Amino acid sequence: DSKLKVFSLNSNPDLAKEIADNIGVDLGKCTVTSFSDGEIQINIEESIRGCDVYVVQSTCEPVNQHIMELLIMIDALKRASARTINIVMPYYGYARQDRKARAREPITAKLVADLLETAGASRVLMLDLHAPQIQGFFNVPIDHLVGVPILSDYFEEKNFDDVVIVSPDHGGVTRARKMADRLKAPIAIIDKRRPRPNVSEVMNIVGNIEGKTAILIDDIIDTAGTITLAANALVENGAKAVYACCTHPVLSGPAIDRIENSKIQELVVTNTIPLGEDKKSEKITELSVAGLISEAIIRVHERQSISILFD
Amino acid sequence: DSKLKVFSLNSNPDLAKEIADNIGVDLGKCTVTSFSDGEIQINIEESIRGCDVYVVQSTCEPVNQHIMELLIMIDALKRASARTINIVMPYYGYARQDRKARAREPITAKLVADLLETAGASRVLMLDLHAPQIQGFFNVPIDHLVGVPILSDYFEEKNFDDVVIVSPDHGGVTRARKMADRLKAPIAIIDKRRPRPNVSEVMNIVGNIEGKTAILIDDIIDTAGTITLAANALVENGAKAVYACCTHPVLSGPAIDRIENSKIQELVVTNTIPLGEDKKSEKITELSVAGLISEAIIRVHERQSISILFD
Ligand SMILES: Nc1ncnc2c1ncn2[C@@H]1O[C@H](COP(=O)(O)O)[C@@H](O)[C@H]1O
Ligand SMILES: Nc1ncnc2c1ncn2[C@@H]1O[C@H](COP(=O)(O)O)[C@@H](O)[C@H]1O
Repeated sequence: DSKLKVFSLNSNPDLAKEIADNIGVDLGKCTVTSFSDGEIQINIEESIRGCDVYVVQSTCEPVNQHIMELLIMIDALKRASARTINIVMPYYGYARQDRKARAREPITAKLVADLLETAGASRVLMLDLHAPQIQGFFNVPIDHLVGVPILSDYFEEKNFDDVVIVSPDHGGVTRARKMADRLKAPIAIIDKRRPRPNVSEVMNIVGNIEGKTAILIDDIIDTAGTITLAANALVENGAKAVYACCTHPVLSGPAIDRIENSKIQELVVTNTIPLGEDKKSEKITELSVAGLISEAIIRVHERQSISILFD
Repeated sequence: DSKLKVFSLNSNPDLAKEIADNIGVDLGKCTVTSFSDGEIQINIEESIRGCDVYVVQSTCEPVNQHIMELLIMIDALKRASARTINIVMPYYGYARQDRKARAREPITAKLVADLLETAGASRVLMLDLHAPQIQGFFNVPIDHLVGVPILSDYFEEKNFDDVVIVSPDHGGVTRARKMADRLKAPIAIIDKRRPRPNVSEVMNIVGNIEGKTAILIDDIIDTAGTITLAANALVENGAKAVYACCTHPVLSGPAIDRIENSKIQELVVTNTIPLGEDKKSEKITELSVAGLISEAIIRVHERQSISILFD
């Protein structure tokens, strides 16, 4: 059987190390630096001829740098005769640019899929895509893992007695339903609407949250505007306490300030995007997806179904 | 006949404006900014349906950002039904990664060519490629312009009486020969060699430079190590004065300091890469390639040969 190798680029070195440790291999030796003019220089420092290579890279900030690192690495691996080049992309950047919402917009999520295939990716493993349709942007096999079980297990251990799972918008109801099933809880939905143009939005809550512990769940928390407004609306409408969770903590711009000044008691995230020093907060708990991903890699390498990981 | 439109991205706004002015069109309206998380957001603000679109973008520093801007713009133009998408890339980044010099290296210059075609480029116009072989990395038509005439004309006006054109290395002799033909001057070559491993290089000069005004010519000046050592060697060996010129002023890291502290009297460059505030120097003269590029665009649009531009 061909050899399995795990390489890390610059987005998630700690997660990549944890994955390699779980699998029981050393991280592949390579250096990914820049020339004086900012061009990326990659040196793969061990033979990978005939190997099944797994490259761990999220396309989080600096997203364009991380995309180019990944494409150049794929090119180098291809030319060095890797047998398969498997991309482990815990966070898929540009996922929100997945359709033309206005005239003459790009569909960058599709562009990135095409770029990965052009460079030479054989397969892509991803977690909680913003829209599952992005799977169809690829012609190579996709393994799409979900973070709900990891987040649910964390809350299960808290043993709250009267819980409701809340989706912060209509788009996230399916995700909230999955978590509610695991926690045997009901769901509620924040139904934002703008009564008239130029009048501020009304946060209407569909479902019963009074006296309950509410857990907001989303896939991405970016500037944290939606989630913090939702949390405050829940408290105003009688929720006993509000928790929030998401798979991908983008947390850009005012996010940390907003979370710290909000009614959110604790925000639970995963390490698909590492929390840089400027994104740490006492309110934020980070869970690791390394177990999930390394299990998936082992099963893929041993040609076993990974559907078991979704239960 | 279909309409010609010129769009600028963020690398060379001044050059793009000059090109549009020369052609006699307004720059196309579009905004290229970033979302809060650093993802590029492009809005094309006028219809380009059925048009021949020219997009001006050098992939100079920040190179990865500029490549992604360009790819996303091409994607947006393609989906907005442009008739042709013509890339005007005065400086082609990653051109020095054009072969495997060592084991397991990427060939990023080829990767970038593939990425441009995948995004949807119909044609690419470039200036002084580091290696002309890069033309063969593309399957779409390439127009390859040269900067030697612009640089030569500048020196011609100085009316030096005893000139020698010097190539700083073996790779640049053809370029030096072209300039020498235009200035009716002889050539010389800096013949660097390392006598033994771990002994510093010897700058041997092939050709007669004594008492002459030497003009060093290169395609790219990056950290300016080679060119400033060459200039000093020329002076030590009896050159009366040393000028230098290049098409692409990358000028990264210690370049400006080295040039200012060198024996180079004047460095003449073009605006394929704009000189940022940190790259200005009294010693540097910038010439514009706008005339050359706009002439080429007009000829391409009118289906005329552009070979006349090489004489
Ligand atoms: N990086 C980004 N940050 C904020 N908004 C984005 C980003 N990328 C795309 N969008 C916008 O988000 C909207 C799609 O988000 P959604 O409705 O949640 O799928 C579109 O209107 C996009 O223009
Ligand atoms: N951006 C860069 N800065 C400095 N050196 C580079 C860069 N890109 C590639 N190289 C190296 O430059 C050499 C090729 O340059 P050349 O011999 O002039 O064609 C190769 O050894 C490359 O590894």
